[in-house]
Amino acid sequence: MEKSSEKFNSYIYGKNSVLETVSQNPKRINKIFFSEHINFDNRLKKIKEIADENSIQIQFTNLNKFNKYFQDDTKKSQNINFQGVIASVSPVEYADFDEFLNKKTDKFRKIVILDGVEDPHNFGAILRTLAAASYDAVIIPKHRSCPVTPTVEKTSSGAVNYIPIIKTNSLSGVIDILKKNDWWIIAADGQSKDNYFDISYTDMNFAIILGAEGEGVSKTLLNKSDFRVKIPCAIESLNVSATCAVIVYESIRQIHQK
Amino acid sequence: MEKSSEKFNSYIYGKNSVLETVSQNPKRINKIFFSEHINFDNRLKKIKEIADENSIQIQFTNLNKFNKYFQDDTKKSQNINFQGVIASVSPVEYADFDEFLNKKTDKFRKIVILDGVEDPHNFGAILRTLAAASYDAVIIPKHRSCPVTPTVEKTSSGAVNYIPIIKTNSLSGVIDILKKNDWWIIAADGQSKDNYFDISYTDMNFAIILGAEGEGVSKTLLNKSDFRVKIPCAIESLNVSATCAVIVYESIRQIHQK
Repeated sequence: MEKSSEKFNSYIYGKNSVLETVSQNPKRINKIFFSEHINFDNRLKKIKEIADENSIQIQFTNLNKFNKYFQDDTKKSQNINFQGVIASVSPVEYADFDEFLNKKTDKFRKIVILDGVEDPHNFGAILRTLAAASYDAVIIPKHRSCPVTPTVEKTSSGAVNYIPIIKTNSLSGVIDILKKNDWWIIAADGQSKDNYFDISYTDMNFAIILGAEGEGVSKTLLNKSDFRVKIPCAIESLNVSATCAVIVYESIRQIHQK
Repeated sequence: MEKSSEKFNSYIYGKNSVLETVSQNPKRINKIFFSEHINFDNRLKKIKEIADENSIQIQFTNLNKFNKYFQDDTKKSQNINFQGVIASVSPVEYADFDEFLNKKTDKFRKIVILDGVEDPHNFGAILRTLAAASYDAVIIPKHRSCPVTPTVEKTSSGAVNYIPIIKTNSLSGVIDILKKNDWWIIAADGQSKDNYFDISYTDMNFAIILGAEGEGVSKTLLNKSDFRVKIPCAIESLNVSATCAVIVYESIRQIHQK
């Protein structure tokens, strides 16, 4: 592996991550590495099949040598279970906010804005939930957010290939523009009087803002929100990815049952 | 630290875990270790205060020497962020099923049964959600389940001290007994036709069975269930802790809005 290529490529691992990526976004994949002593199960067979169809290069090798590439990310390089497959991929392409905003659709759209969620496991879990719920995008700040690392790709189980990720210099600016374009802004706020199920998520474009654990959504963004909602909670707080799942699926329930 | 004590004690770390444990269950704590160069923030101050009230021994020390005690659990011993505090604790005491079942209450009760959830992060996240939602217990099998490791305690953010954990030799047997006692059994099943919001969670005692990721709830337990419910999902599946959050909070919503 040449030094220079490391700058432009990264690696993903695990059956689900690689399968989702090769099936949804084969162009992202430069090469697939299988463990040299592998027993092909259904998912691994599928990966090889799609790789062959797309003329993606395959190599059988000792995967342990890849441990070092995951070091700065997971900090637990010695013990990664690659599940027999690693892929060298181009980085996720971020989506453009203006393009997203101006896209013509005949349906109401729903997105999540992450205000300071820096943990890669939480970020990955949130992406997976949003992909499952067919949300339209997630917006993250350029600073104080987690980049799409291999851990994020793994935790998201390949969902990074389904849900457009938009990066912005100013969440505040993005929210102002959304509001001007008739979007409604809903902030998760443990101090709120309203429960998340007290508001209606139907017949409108809306964005749900989730804050960092402990700190919550920042004051500036809270003040710009149309609604603040809490999840009734007997302990100090729910995990941010659980919060995301609960509110996002309440919107899905309301839309289904409308 | 003596070799012999390792058998009977384990360690928990992190501000939330230690704070929740010392406030909810001070008798579990044998000793608290603070980092020798610590700056006390509010949560750490609170820990020290409650420890003093309960005459719990405190020591200021270099916490790095504890890394080895977390090795078999997290496999990432070198990089643990203890957040300045570690506590030596007695193991979590499991609750007794018969005692739980026969307890007189004037409210309907709700529990979760975990069928093969072996990942400590998922188990911890599920415990935290159940504590937040004031569920009455969680039942896990003696085999094919994750013990309450330090990672579970940390991920649960101390919720292990709020939610009774019941271990059983036979989930199948437990379910039979619950049914004889007028409990309703609901299984999460991606193949179901009914959505999780199509059934009513009010006015009954119920147990929600969640299965291992990929495999789902085992056939035997599915066949014993009164309801099978799915979460509408555009990708292969949701993470089991997200599944838990979504179904559990749908029950909370229905009970609130009844």
